[in-house]
Amino acid sequence: MVNGSTELVAIVGSPIAQVKSPENFNRWFEGNALNRVMLPIDISAQALSSFIDTLRGWQNLRGCVVTIPYKQQVVEHLDELSERARALRSVNVIRREADGRLIGDNVDGEGFLNAGRQQGFDAKGKRALVIGAGGVGSAIAYSLCQAGVSALSLSDVSHERVEALAQLLRSAFPGLPVSTRVDSLSQFELIANASPVGMGDSGELPLPQALLQSLPASAHVADVVTAPEITPLLALAKARGCSIQTGPQMALAQAGNLGHFMGATALVL
Amino acid sequence: MVNGSTELVAIVGSPIAQVKSPENFNRWFEGNALNRVMLPIDISAQALSSFIDTLRGWQNLRGCVVTIPYKQQVVEHLDELSERARALRSVNVIRREADGRLIGDNVDGEGFLNAGRQQGFDAKGKRALVIGAGGVGSAIAYSLCQAGVSALSLSDVSHERVEALAQLLRSAFPGLPVSTRVDSLSQFELIANASPVGMGDSGELPLPQALLQSLPASAHVADVVTAPEITPLLALAKARGCSIQTGPQMALAQAGNLGHFMGATALVL
Repeated sequence: MVNGSTELVAIVGSPIAQVKSPENFNRWFEGNALNRVMLPIDISAQALSSFIDTLRGWQNLRGCVVTIPYKQQVVEHLDELSERARALRSVNVIRREADGRLIGDNVDGEGFLNAGRQQGFDAKGKRALVIGAGGVGSAIAYSLCQAGVSALSLSDVSHERVEALAQLLRSAFPGLPVSTRVDSLSQFELIANASPVGMGDSGELPLPQALLQSLPASAHVADVVTAPEITPLLALAKARGCSIQTGPQMALAQAGNLGHFMGATALVL
Repeated sequence: MVNGSTELVAIVGSPIAQVKSPENFNRWFEGNALNRVMLPIDISAQALSSFIDTLRGWQNLRGCVVTIPYKQQVVEHLDELSERARALRSVNVIRREADGRLIGDNVDGEGFLNAGRQQGFDAKGKRALVIGAGGVGSAIAYSLCQAGVSALSLSDVSHERVEALAQLLRSAFPGLPVSTRVDSLSQFELIANASPVGMGDSGELPLPQALLQSLPASAHVADVVTAPEITPLLALAKARGCSIQTGPQMALAQAGNLGHFMGATALVL
């Protein structure tokens, strides 16, 4: 039960009622007998800047997870950004230093990588395809580059968006081949869906059937979609004999990364 | 367990670890199966103004209890004040309206009155003495005047402070006799200690022994000191045959008033 000396972490967004992080974190805090709580904070757009100023002086708060629609808007208000948060112009977690300075990072991609590692998949030296060049896809692509993939391909329904991400990555990782053309899946050792396609009961696949014919059984296939846990893409990959990685596995691993960054949990929840 | 849809109330102060309100409120919320939590917020003085601005846009927060050292400082930042909060220049609870407006009140005195009512004591028409003209004493004296005492006497170690409070009350309640001279206790039907004298194991009494000789057995004697529960003054009063009212009884009644003002609890915890 929360008392006067309970340490706080928060998650900020609007709306906030739907987020699962408080339950996940609070179950972990309780299971580890920590007097700590994650609270959901629904802040209006007009109050976001005051909220960030408040964080600097909020002495019993360790940090704050940032979710929709504020991942981009908080960037300009922080005191320091990780290299990837600066490149991606997107922050999903803020740590409050003891002196009140606010440091931002984006660990969406780290959560993805850690979920892979937990299943024995290491991205280093692999040829990877990321489908979806939005916020999560960008973060995953960036972290794959940091982790040392040997080549990266990108796919998105928006030509403009995928080219912008490719350019960002080519400039941040000179020498790494980044392609936006995908004719076959046969060369890929990792295929990651970071688009919303497959969510709910749409039954949709994020790539054309013709292209999926070339999916090799040796590939590791991952999806960020959390419901259903086994998306149509993952079902197809599983039937093909591929190893698979689910959205909930990434979400859990990511929670560990978020908590670790704030100094509030051990790395893995 | 706190989740995304948990409604929040807060208590702000600095330091905050020692406050008992979160435990009291959270026990009540849990006992009444409400998905609601009170969180302790330790805000630095520099961030207080940003914190108040944040409250306006904090859409899943109902209100905030204010404690030391911010009861006076928040006054100027709010959108509306109760008459007594404005007169006392002191706020101990803020309600956030649905449109973000912040309304301040001071229910220290109401908590005191309610604790009395719960024991069948009604201040209306009574002759009362309040010892201590600080924040809590001022609020209790003001509420006693609102509740219709027939005469009020005030006592404090600081001549300046007691005269300032007397003047404030005379101006707010014209016609009510307010005295700062206490020669005997024999006429009083209520004697309230709102000073810290008697706290801990000092064994001290808030009035001279000579004066206490005149304490009538018919008086209701109250103390705001919470530890010990039975202060030296209450022990003496009990021995004399007086009815008594303790600090913890007031604290509990006051928690009800705070929660009620924020729309977060029924009146009595």
